[in-house]
Amino acid sequence: MGVLSVLFLSLATILAISLQVSGLHIPHLIRQPIAGEEPSPGSSCSSWRLGVETNNIRDWKTVPKTCEGYVGDYMLGPQYREDSRIVTDEAFRYAESLQLAGDGKDVWIFDVDETTISNVDFVAQYGFGAEPFNGTASIEWVMKGEAPALPESLKLYRRLLNLGIKVVFLVRRTEYERDATERNLKLVGYHTWEKVLLRNSSDYNQTNVEFKSSKRRKLVERGYRIIGNIGDQWSDLLGDYAGNRTFKLPNPIYYA
Amino acid sequence: MGVLSVLFLSLATILAISLQVSGLHIPHLIRQPIAGEEPSPGSSCSSWRLGVETNNIRDWKTVPKTCEGYVGDYMLGPQYREDSRIVTDEAFRYAESLQLAGDGKDVWIFDVDETTISNVDFVAQYGFGAEPFNGTASIEWVMKGEAPALPESLKLYRRLLNLGIKVVFLVRRTEYERDATERNLKLVGYHTWEKVLLRNSSDYNQTNVEFKSSKRRKLVERGYRIIGNIGDQWSDLLGDYAGNRTFKLPNPIYYA
Repeated sequence: MGVLSVLFLSLATILAISLQVSGLHIPHLIRQPIAGEEPSPGSSCSSWRLGVETNNIRDWKTVPKTCEGYVGDYMLGPQYREDSRIVTDEAFRYAESLQLAGDGKDVWIFDVDETTISNVDFVAQYGFGAEPFNGTASIEWVMKGEAPALPESLKLYRRLLNLGIKVVFLVRRTEYERDATERNLKLVGYHTWEKVLLRNSSDYNQTNVEFKSSKRRKLVERGYRIIGNIGDQWSDLLGDYAGNRTFKLPNPIYYA
Repeated sequence: MGVLSVLFLSLATILAISLQVSGLHIPHLIRQPIAGEEPSPGSSCSSWRLGVETNNIRDWKTVPKTCEGYVGDYMLGPQYREDSRIVTDEAFRYAESLQLAGDGKDVWIFDVDETTISNVDFVAQYGFGAEPFNGTASIEWVMKGEAPALPESLKLYRRLLNLGIKVVFLVRRTEYERDATERNLKLVGYHTWEKVLLRNSSDYNQTNVEFKSSKRRKLVERGYRIIGNIGDQWSDLLGDYAGNRTFKLPNPIYYA
């Protein structure tokens, strides 16, 4: 952010305050953008992020180069935490309102990457998603099994267990990564689960929606009721047997 | 916003610049919130808005009282425009990529309120959604038929017509409001359409999803292909025959 932008921001703030002080909060007609009045990179990146989170922008490969700084600041700052907290609080409020059967068949599905644990330390090395990931380095990162928990999801996990809900982790990692994944989950506080469902060789050609739908169908066929489902990708939450209610955590660093 | 907040914001900006200049963009572990470090009302309202736009927060009656100023500033400012532009640009990019049959059966569904036209002038009188609307005043506002166009949607509408796509307006207004609605659409630039579909007395007990699904099913039964669907409410975009692809415009002022 340049010095000029700072000056402009301060002037805009002073203007906004003067208008509020003078009580000038009159409804306006929808204002057409004035020629030459370009949105700042910040407002464009904020709109891009909203477009991603609402599933309007799909199949993107990397974060726009101009938004690298914006996305990095977001992922390391308080807004990402607060955005996550609102979602997990809402999820708990919903779970709390349910009449549970108490027969151990009520399950809640958690995705793993950017849902229960955070790979931001790894992704930071690739411009917070503005550069393509290195596949080999990515597997090495997973195999280390040291990714920290997303604190809001860990809190939700504990609160759901307290309600008597069983947790199923459903993630598009491979069976090869099972040990590292389970070790990582335990390391950061996810000590118990009903199942950890991963990909095996027969699932390799499936899209994320197909893979997750098929695993969820099997759960339902075995008598489980999927009362909730939380993930950071729309592909975690769309498709068949998605769950009685789904919750979308933020993720502006990659699309899957 | 108080003078102290302005001072704090300026200091934070200077700090952010110093850190960027010194190249200190090291990856961090997920930081737990520090005790006493509360999110500002702005960041909470921003999270609330994201929660609404991603369909995580549902069935809400009014905008949180603490977010009235935030939501008002958003609706009257450039971010709402830019957020809308990203969606309609993405919608056009998608439409442009399609191979159309050219038989006049490719239709795009537009919702009306907060999608093609804006009621922000009316809603501003009710704290931008922080106070419940007056039902009678609401009908009077609709019957005036003078709501301005949402400029981004009007542009999308024109671009879709140029591609040879027909437009269907599908809105949960009543047949009683048809004349005012059609007059309003024409007044602000929506001069032509395939259909304007409204509620009649048999639809009064249906939810928005049920009403819109049923109208869409009838379109498909008559041989139309719903290639796209744009609305500001998730209930415009969920349910049966939702369309080959759906687009969610922002609306933090009411839930339907």
